[in-house]
Amino acid sequence: MAGHLYGIGVGPGDPELMTLKAQRLLRACPIVAHFAAPSRRGNAWTIVEGVLEPGQAVLRLEYPVTTEAVEATEYERLLDAFYDASAAAVERELLAGRDVAVVCEGDPFFYGSYMYLHERLARRYPTTVVPGVTSFSAAAAAAGTPLVSREETLTVIPGVLGQPELEAVLRGVDAAVVMKVGQHLVDIRAAAAGAGIEGAVYVERASCLDQRVLPLADTDGLQAPYFSVVLVPGRALAQRRPRPQ
Amino acid sequence: MAGHLYGIGVGPGDPELMTLKAQRLLRACPIVAHFAAPSRRGNAWTIVEGVLEPGQAVLRLEYPVTTEAVEATEYERLLDAFYDASAAAVERELLAGRDVAVVCEGDPFFYGSYMYLHERLARRYPTTVVPGVTSFSAAAAAAGTPLVSREETLTVIPGVLGQPELEAVLRGVDAAVVMKVGQHLVDIRAAAAGAGIEGAVYVERASCLDQRVLPLADTDGLQAPYFSVVLVPGRALAQRRPRPQ
Repeated sequence: MAGHLYGIGVGPGDPELMTLKAQRLLRACPIVAHFAAPSRRGNAWTIVEGVLEPGQAVLRLEYPVTTEAVEATEYERLLDAFYDASAAAVERELLAGRDVAVVCEGDPFFYGSYMYLHERLARRYPTTVVPGVTSFSAAAAAAGTPLVSREETLTVIPGVLGQPELEAVLRGVDAAVVMKVGQHLVDIRAAAAGAGIEGAVYVERASCLDQRVLPLADTDGLQAPYFSVVLVPGRALAQRRPRPQ
Repeated sequence: MAGHLYGIGVGPGDPELMTLKAQRLLRACPIVAHFAAPSRRGNAWTIVEGVLEPGQAVLRLEYPVTTEAVEATEYERLLDAFYDASAAAVERELLAGRDVAVVCEGDPFFYGSYMYLHERLARRYPTTVVPGVTSFSAAAAAAGTPLVSREETLTVIPGVLGQPELEAVLRGVDAAVVMKVGQHLVDIRAAAAGAGIEGAVYVERASCLDQRVLPLADTDGLQAPYFSVVLVPGRALAQRRPRPQ
């Protein structure tokens, strides 16, 4: 009998922000697979390694290259081949009857790499996806800032879009989150300023021991890691008059 | 010494989708507060009641009216007074030195009622917010549908906006979630059809034992509960050619 594929969201960084279900299923799988960039430990791995039981085997799925190193079309081709090879590696375990937990920082279906395995394997193997806490929820909690309420719309934008497109999107939002900030911080800050956004907050490594929370306007010269976000909290609450004490 | 205020996201419905941190802090607080509609048990309460320890006291914060019963401005006034009274009830416990866990379905700062207590109390009492898994992450997991990837934007829209505005928003999205569907299902379906959206999925009570997943187009005559969502999955993955097996 084939093994069961689990796509497990392990949350934003603090291992205690894993769900009970994630922890239970993770510990029950003989194989734990995770993605990692070359010469990095991998964010999902860092979250789960302290939770695993002796005897669980680790399948490290290492990306072939960083985005900057090659042309866009060549990068796409390399990534496609990498996801094919990763799916094949996971499939070998499933065919041998072993359950595989693919761990994913945040939530698997919210910008998670797990989905590239899911699209290749889920139709052919029993599959369960366990949702996780996203980095933006952790960032709002870290900042102590309500993000979106009532009849407001929340727009979640990848930082990679570039300044003009980011600015155009930010002009129309009630509340927003810019994900995967990294090297795009300067663009994002310019876009927010251009869109007349006030009160935006930069949050780095939300929920981790070294988390940082700063007003976006105070991020001059800062080297943002990939896993940082910018929050544009909704205005509905901000516009309410302060309550009499 | 004053008590500590905790705003605790307890996830989308399945008690096992609570985080380890939520469970630990929840059990450590002598007072557990939750919101509930009149003559309802309360969604957050339903999630946590099996987790509490003997001796924990419950503070039920019951909404005064349903949205439909009164005019909009009168409803606003009643709600404001209700949140004032709720904050006062929580504050009495804090002043008596007791820690209070305010439990919230999903994530506290993502359309959560906790934020109305937070804005009234967090500046004056030590406060911690614990992020939770949102209903849309649970819905995507239930549907087995990747929601958003790569350079796509995700737009989260409350169902209450009405058909014309919903349709206008949906025309421009890469991927979307419509929250708090309830009585607005027919409007949402019309808006999605008008915007030329295909492949939208309706998910009810995601992660609960009685969860339901249907194509939005197949929801004729369905009575949707308030806690249901419509997913419009991103196109990036859908457009990829099927992989050779």
